Amino acid sequence: MAAAPVAKVTGMSSIPDFWAVIPAGGSGTRLWPLSRAGHPKFLHDLTGEGHTLIQGTVDRVAPLAADRVVVVTGVAHAEAVRAQLPGLTPDRVLAEPSPRDSMAAIAWAAAVIEREDPEAMIGSFAADHVIPDGEAFRACVAEAVAVAREDYVVTIGVEPTFPATSFGYIQMGQALDGHATAARVRQFVEKPDASRAANYLATGEFRWNAGMFVVKATVLLDLLTRWHPELAAGVRAIAADPSTLAQRWPELTRIAIDHAIAEPAADIGRVAVVPGAFTWNDVGDFATLRELLPTADDGVAVLGDPALVTTIDASGFVAPRGGRHVAVLGLTDVVVVDTGDAVLVTTVERAQDVKAVVDALKAGGRPDLT
Amino acid sequence: MAAAPVAKVTGMSSIPDFWAVIPAGGSGTRLWPLSRAGHPKFLHDLTGEGHTLIQGTVDRVAPLAADRVVVVTGVAHAEAVRAQLPGLTPDRVLAEPSPRDSMAAIAWAAAVIEREDPEAMIGSFAADHVIPDGEAFRACVAEAVAVAREDYVVTIGVEPTFPATSFGYIQMGQALDGHATAARVRQFVEKPDASRAANYLATGEFRWNAGMFVVKATVLLDLLTRWHPELAAGVRAIAADPSTLAQRWPELTRIAIDHAIAEPAADIGRVAVVPGAFTWNDVGDFATLRELLPTADDGVAVLGDPALVTTIDASGFVAPRGGRHVAVLGLTDVVVVDTGDAVLVTTVERAQDVKAVVDALKAGGRPDLT
Repeated sequence: MAAAPVAKVTGMSSIPDFWAVIPAGGSGTRLWPLSRAGHPKFLHDLTGEGHTLIQGTVDRVAPLAADRVVVVTGVAHAEAVRAQLPGLTPDRVLAEPSPRDSMAAIAWAAAVIEREDPEAMIGSFAADHVIPDGEAFRACVAEAVAVAREDYVVTIGVEPTFPATSFGYIQMGQALDGHATAARVRQFVEKPDASRAANYLATGEFRWNAGMFVVKATVLLDLLTRWHPELAAGVRAIAADPSTLAQRWPELTRIAIDHAIAEPAADIGRVAVVPGAFTWNDVGDFATLRELLPTADDGVAVLGDPALVTTIDASGFVAPRGGRHVAVLGLTDVVVVDTGDAVLVTTVERAQDVKAVVDALKAGGRPDLT
Repeated sequence: MAAAPVAKVTGMSSIPDFWAVIPAGGSGTRLWPLSRAGHPKFLHDLTGEGHTLIQGTVDRVAPLAADRVVVVTGVAHAEAVRAQLPGLTPDRVLAEPSPRDSMAAIAWAAAVIEREDPEAMIGSFAADHVIPDGEAFRACVAEAVAVAREDYVVTIGVEPTFPATSFGYIQMGQALDGHATAARVRQFVEKPDASRAANYLATGEFRWNAGMFVVKATVLLDLLTRWHPELAAGVRAIAADPSTLAQRWPELTRIAIDHAIAEPAADIGRVAVVPGAFTWNDVGDFATLRELLPTADDGVAVLGDPALVTTIDASGFVAPRGGRHVAVLGLTDVVVVDTGDAVLVTTVERAQDVKAVVDALKAGGRPDLT
């Protein structure tokens, strides 16, 4: 399958052997008090579009994957996920007994899919990211699937729009023959400081690492066998006999997919990247969430009912989610989040530090609020 | 009665012919959303001391006035005032059918008191001011009563601690013979700008006008007869026949006591001032309210339960009055007021402008919140 023509087609059709894996983890503490440990951000409608982040993620892949979608989430959230995704049969929502990091989650899903469809291609996409242009996203995924058929681990590298210091980067190498935009990956690099980030952008060779991987299920598990054989064997054994989950799961190695597979595979030339020019937002904190929302004339972005907000000489982000009226007077780039049991007041600048409030509540005897 | 020895006595005894008049008006819009039109600030415990402002005002005058206390308030608040002041007989709470400004309110009380005690001395003290040192306050009042027996209108001039631009000032003149600290009033001056206020303080002759007046009831009404005869006759007629209240009240002249009596009486040498060195706070806005409250180590003053507040890198004022937890991260001199149906976020610097929020709510279809 050549990618170039596909990328120009709208209303793309399903890829029959393509499966979507949706890891739905993380509590989103930087979005407290909207996001809670018991009700994490992927379960919320944070864009005001009438669907939750995980519903938006499934909708985005559905034209390619149809009902071939597997969600991996914590046991505490499995019921809520199934309720939000009634189109999925309950066995397509895998419930982790405890958090074992991203490699165990994705590998378990790959092993389950591999048993059902030994030739399956899988794409892993986090449940809590926002990509407004689904069409452009799917064009990239379709090209990534075509590349992954050649036994590459394929990542989608998002075109940076500013020198972000909160994301890792992917350095692109030589173009891959036979594909419209794909290239080899020279290296993955960790979150840079500001000056390195600026240098990355200046080269034109770097893309944001959005944690999206497309790969043949067997390739993923066979590469994992090479570097973490006990982890690969463990998830294949669980897939073969789900009754062993409770016993085997706690023994699985805790490691992120980046370290377990992506980086070592890049070192042996097995990773490719398809650059994505679409807007991507990981909804990491209130500063990034604000960017997803329309800003009123007065400079305030509202998540919720604008009739509940009165602002005078103010700018920033206001989420009136507790039914109360919120009034802001004389503050620039402020963040005000009102919920039923907690109110947060901070600034766009300090949005990254909201986790410190959650830590303080845990230490201060109010874990019930986190 | 000479004031000097009295001022040194603690546990001062009652002055048998002294009556306190407590005008309880004003909605306190600059303290929104704590203060509402339907539940104005004098009905609130804004100091966290376990009594409301009007209860504190009555307690402060009680050692001098015993049960000779008359409150004048709007008809909408009379029931709440009576409930908060069970020691007053219901007829001591005069309910104004509509607001007619301070002269009508105080003159009505004076006329009622004059009928019961033709020789009564009255002192008028607003229901929503805070004076922590009641002993020093009463010493001033006792001296003011002694001066008022010589048929002066006596005001208490609070010693300025900074060049305030939000209060009027009183310029002191020649000392009054036979009294410890009293002096004639040269003039009342309106709220000055910052440079004039600084000049006032530099002279040492100026005191804050806290709106406190001590005067013989008949003197007040006779002076009023001189400048506003229909107003004086109106309140005396209502006092003589309370059944005429509804008919006569709307016809009374709307004027403040400062313009009706204090200023013209000063022009003819009939006003004296007793300087007061006590701390006085008119609780005009959240900036002044903050000064009444202890500030925690982290620089945040809390009105309410400190266990409901988490602050990190923050200073200012937080009122958790809605039962919810309030978290503030990375804001200096911020004001956060949480109530059951509304949350205000502003700054100490903009505290004076909170009225604009109330105006916006009225104009924006939410007068129910004001």
